[in-house]
This record gives sequence, C-alpha cells and structure tokens, in this order.
Amino acid sequence: MTDSTDTLRRGRPGYDQRGILEVAVAAFNEHGYDATSIGMLAARLGLSKSAIYHHVASKEELLALALDEALDGLEGVLRSPEATTGSAADRLEAVLRGAVLVLAERLPYVTLLLRVRGNTDVERAALQRRRAFDRAVARLVAEAQAEGAVRADAEAAVVARLLFGMINSLTEWYAPSGPTTPEHLADTIVALALTR
Amino acid sequence: MTDSTDTLRRGRPGYDQRGILEVAVAAFNEHGYDATSIGMLAARLGLSKSAIYHHVASKEELLALALDEALDGLEGVLRSPEATTGSAADRLEAVLRGAVLVLAERLPYVTLLLRVRGNTDVERAALQRRRAFDRAVARLVAEAQAEGAVRADAEAAVVARLLFGMINSLTEWYAPSGPTTPEHLADTIVALALTR
Repeated sequence: MTDSTDTLRRGRPGYDQRGILEVAVAAFNEHGYDATSIGMLAARLGLSKSAIYHHVASKEELLALALDEALDGLEGVLRSPEATTGSAADRLEAVLRGAVLVLAERLPYVTLLLRVRGNTDVERAALQRRRAFDRAVARLVAEAQAEGAVRADAEAAVVARLLFGMINSLTEWYAPSGPTTPEHLADTIVALALTR
Repeated sequence: MTDSTDTLRRGRPGYDQRGILEVAVAAFNEHGYDATSIGMLAARLGLSKSAIYHHVASKEELLALALDEALDGLEGVLRSPEATTGSAADRLEAVLRGAVLVLAERLPYVTLLLRVRGNTDVERAALQRRRAFDRAVARLVAEAQAEGAVRADAEAAVVARLLFGMINSLTEWYAPSGPTTPEHLADTIVALALTR
C-alpha cells in the first residue's frame, strides 16, 4: 500500500472525495469549469493542492465524477421497474417523476450537466449519454402518443424536449428549502403532460 | 452637430449600432458578458475601439440595449390586444404564443436575458422587469385556473414557471433553420397548458 492510497483510505480530516466533489461542483457552477482551478478549490477547502490530489487525479476527474452523478441518476430512472413495465403512459409518468426527483436530489450536479457544451472529451462523453437519454424519452413519448396518452400531437422528440424543458427549468428556480415538494412538482408536470 | 453625432448618423461602413449590438450579443452569449471586452468586439467587427464608441457609450450600454430588446418584446406581448381581451384562457394562450414568437425572433437576446444574474445595475433592472413579467403571467394562470382552463391545479406561480420552463428551453435547442416552426411549437405548448 502506497502512502497516498493509505491517506486516501483514512481520508483527510473534514474532507473525503465526496466532500471535495461537492465544493468543486459549487465552484464550477458559480465561476464556470474553465475559470475554476485546483488552486481555487484548495483555497475554498482550506487544503493544499497536494491534499486534493490525494483524492482526485485532476480537475477533469472532478468534472467526470460530477457528470456521472447526474447521468447515473437519470439513467437509473430509465432502468427502474416503474419505467420498464406497464403502459407507455405509466412508464412515461415514471420517467418524468423520477427525473424530477433526481433533479431535486442532485440539483448542482444536474445544473452542471445542463451547462456542458462539449469542449473536452469528458464533456463530449457526457453529451453523448445525455442525447441517448433524450432519445429514450422521445421513444417513450412516441409510444404514449400512440396510446393517446400524451396531449400534444407534435413530433415526439419535440414534445420530449418541451417536457424536459419544464423539468430542467427546476435548476433555475427550485429551492430545496422552499414550500413546494419535488413530489408536488412531479404531479404538476405529469398533469400537464398526460391525459389522465 | 458634433463630429461624433455626425458620424453616428452617417454610420461607419458596414456597421450601425444595431450591427454592433448583434455581434456583441453573440460574443456575450459565447464568452460571458464579464469576459467580453470592447477590444474583443472591435477585433470581431474589424473596427477600432473608438469607432465602436461612436455608436455606444460603453459595454454596459450594449448590455442594456440587448436586454431591452428581449424585455420590450416580452412586455409587448403582455400589452397586445389578444393578451388583454377575452377569457383568461384566450389571454394566456396569446401570451404563451407571443412569447414563443419573441423567443424565436430574438433568440440571442432572450438567451442573454435568461443568463442575467444581477451583478450590475443594468442586470438588476432587467431582473426586476423579468420578475414583473413572471408575476403578470402567474396572475393570468391563476385566472385561467379559476376558469378551469389550465390543466394543473398547482400554485399559479409554479405552473407559470413550468410553462415558461418549456418556452425558455427553446434557447437551448430551437434552430431557426430547422423543420419545426415557431407557430407549431406554440401550438404544442398551448396544447399541453390549456384544456381545449
């Protein structure tokens, strides 16, 4: 066991990789990924840069971990039992609800994901996963339209984008400490999307 | 008449204030307002900095003009005859349709508006106008809910935010050269929002 692995296991007082990731994501969202340096993160954390490098190999690894957090959550929704059994309407409802909950629980991570423009390999890989997610939702919208369960008769990909426009707007205005629960938001979005 | 006024009237070859504004807004959206300098704009335009200053007093004036372009368009929708007469459902439909058309026609300006975070007086004034617009839409949603014309029975301000979440998402994915017309997008959004 190397010294650095040993340090990683025991952890620095106050911060493990997860704690560093949370501070990094807040900084990426506030200043932009490009404008954030490991030095800035070290100052925010009250750690030395080398202490950070005990936990992550690079700033890009922090970005990859953060985008995984958002994408794993959204892809998990698509694979959930509720989203893979029953009518298309039931499955679409499960995806819309699940996505709202993921956004509410992982708000800074999804906020970061939505800002990704594909400037690096890590960002391009994330965009590719996001597009695959969007295509899966569009297929589900098409099936639900065929059942007569979606109100709008526009192209499924357009309806899917509009429905996720509602959901993604939560990153702009949803306050976890506010009076509106994620479950209530999900009810509202489902009421707008589906004929039931 | 001063020399600079004279220059302004005659205009520099190739660019009037409007042309400079278009290039500035594209740069603000691409690099961020803070990271964009008059020097960068001069390089993009192939003008000297002093040539730009014949047309606008400052970078902040360009920001103010750009945000006015977006806000005047949206506020104009609220004041239109269609949005001020008839049932609440008719008026809300007119506002949703009108906002989609403003976004499609003034896409870079609205994109810039949606990124404003209130770091300067100009930005704070724009945010104040945006919030007044949001409140007017929420009042209209409440009236339409009272008529039974809005599908979701959640708090009007929440429904208004979700409906504009759909509309504002156009800044992320709407392509003016694409196959989907703004009118068709407006039809789809109205179909999701209203019971008709």
